[in-house]
Amino acid sequence: MKIYNFSAGPACLPEPVLAAAAEASKQYMRTGMSLMEMSHRSTPVVELFEETTERIKSLLAIPSNYHVLWLQGGASTQFSMVPLNLLPEGSSADYIETGAWSIKAIAECNKVGRANVIGSSKDVTFSFIPKECEQNTRSPYLHITSNNTIYGTQFKVFPKIENKDGVLVADMSSDILSKPIDVTEFGLIYAGAQKNMGPAGVTLVIIRDDLVGKNYRVLPTMLNYETHVKKDSMFNTPPVFSVFVVNETLKWLEDLGGLEAMAVINERKAGKLYSEIERNPLFRSPVNAVDCSLMNVPFVFNKEGMDDGTFLQFCDKRGLNTLKGHRSVGGFRASIYNAMPEAGVDALISAMQDYEIV
Amino acid sequence: MKIYNFSAGPACLPEPVLAAAAEASKQYMRTGMSLMEMSHRSTPVVELFEETTERIKSLLAIPSNYHVLWLQGGASTQFSMVPLNLLPEGSSADYIETGAWSIKAIAECNKVGRANVIGSSKDVTFSFIPKECEQNTRSPYLHITSNNTIYGTQFKVFPKIENKDGVLVADMSSDILSKPIDVTEFGLIYAGAQKNMGPAGVTLVIIRDDLVGKNYRVLPTMLNYETHVKKDSMFNTPPVFSVFVVNETLKWLEDLGGLEAMAVINERKAGKLYSEIERNPLFRSPVNAVDCSLMNVPFVFNKEGMDDGTFLQFCDKRGLNTLKGHRSVGGFRASIYNAMPEAGVDALISAMQDYEIV
Repeated sequence: MKIYNFSAGPACLPEPVLAAAAEASKQYMRTGMSLMEMSHRSTPVVELFEETTERIKSLLAIPSNYHVLWLQGGASTQFSMVPLNLLPEGSSADYIETGAWSIKAIAECNKVGRANVIGSSKDVTFSFIPKECEQNTRSPYLHITSNNTIYGTQFKVFPKIENKDGVLVADMSSDILSKPIDVTEFGLIYAGAQKNMGPAGVTLVIIRDDLVGKNYRVLPTMLNYETHVKKDSMFNTPPVFSVFVVNETLKWLEDLGGLEAMAVINERKAGKLYSEIERNPLFRSPVNAVDCSLMNVPFVFNKEGMDDGTFLQFCDKRGLNTLKGHRSVGGFRASIYNAMPEAGVDALISAMQDYEIV
Repeated sequence: MKIYNFSAGPACLPEPVLAAAAEASKQYMRTGMSLMEMSHRSTPVVELFEETTERIKSLLAIPSNYHVLWLQGGASTQFSMVPLNLLPEGSSADYIETGAWSIKAIAECNKVGRANVIGSSKDVTFSFIPKECEQNTRSPYLHITSNNTIYGTQFKVFPKIENKDGVLVADMSSDILSKPIDVTEFGLIYAGAQKNMGPAGVTLVIIRDDLVGKNYRVLPTMLNYETHVKKDSMFNTPPVFSVFVVNETLKWLEDLGGLEAMAVINERKAGKLYSEIERNPLFRSPVNAVDCSLMNVPFVFNKEGMDDGTFLQFCDKRGLNTLKGHRSVGGFRASIYNAMPEAGVDALISAMQDYEIV
């Protein structure tokens, strides 16, 4: 039976990417060695990093005044690195609070300086994206979480920064590479790989060059963006194998036609699923329609008293896995990242329709 | 031609481990999914972490009052985490300086407090391990690098801590699991995986439970050992695939007979190679004999005017790769970690003998 994995992350990866990972585990480029055995200083690995960086620059149309870094520690480490690197001593930065990940980013900023929460949807279970939030004139940056995996909301338009010396910073862990973006709207973008890019264990950072080396405070060498910019992400041994899998995923995206083509597919997949949630009297969406995520689609039973577990089992028997909603929302959540085939969404829709007439 | 990879790290891995990695890239435990696609909250992944932790506890005979953590960021991040977590505000800790990695650890300590360098072999190119260093009576810890990959030295006996409230902290990145150790001699051990345990991207930390949660200062959540102890290394998405490869390497070690058996093999491999360096009039060791590493064996030409490159090419043609010495020592370096087959050492010795009569 074909398994469709609706996990919120780590999440499904394209089949050719997994085949390439299996091959590289055994032997990389006829070197007689597995990629996992090769020195990060060896020519093939240095070239792999250069190629991966060039490929993502091309896919996202990243201008030449931005650096691309491949780091460790996930978005959770970036929650600290952003204020440690960008927030002057004794100052504060703006944050929009749209879910669990924003809350963590805010908490880490408050350890370094002060986070001004200029917009929040917390008191309605994060069911919408706050808009037209009043920015502080001196904030060095405004931090947003572009897509919220738990609550299923997504920024469709990014805030314009009012402070001419300020920048927009985005945690794009769960919608990076799902559509074209204008990188020049951002000073810094970061993303854990494990949703749309590859396996857990590598974090992408895209940073405008004037934000590097501010050195507002003494900080651990590994937490300074400048360290990694100066050494092309090779200051210490980087997670080589994870970067290889990212590169293969980027190749797959290129072959598909790039981010414009990916966006069309993602719109179509999500469109179908939201239409079925709307149509099917059993289900409803807990999210404000204009803010609904194309990546994570939560839905709940329309009526009290229906048992979530029974529907989850019904799906599981059809190979539709990991559809349980996060405990703070309940119900169901279909994470339909780039690598989820349209056939997987179709299979889920069929299951919802069949359950209607059970 | 069989390739033997003498890289200092990332380094060679056992063949059954690489075969298991290739299989898990495609499908993990008949789930219909690749391990790289699976949620870290899923039962198979949680069980994988438990199993890997139990296995290393058993192999290293880690007592129950120690925690085992699987982190990201390598030893370079531990250089900061150790003083951030163990050094009270305004105080200092003892360090023994035995090479490039010690120097980095000392530099990070000096950002947090003050490092007392109580022993150093810096002025003789780190060719020996300082012994009988005078410890400061109030130092909360003494930090050592147990094996020095660049200079080829290794602690054969660990310093006894004089301060009854102090502990020994060791960076064991390049000799962990190469022999049995008495974990109770240490308060904290850390090691990047990419030499003796697995691929780059995961860091082992073994920490005695009374050292967790000292909270001497406000620090990023990700840099607090307590964060990871409380969540069994699942505070954020961990590097699942790398941990899997570690587990397979631990299984391979078990099948071999555990660390006692591994130590016998390592003694034999290194013994042969040092004997040949001693015997062969072309070569000499730059290292103090009693401190010579069983993991990294540097050697240089005995006479001026011989060309390193020619010997490296000679070896390369026989499939003996990555033997170039580090630029700060010159000559050659054979890294013969656990996974280097004895046949690889034999092949290198043959090459040295054949070069003698060329």
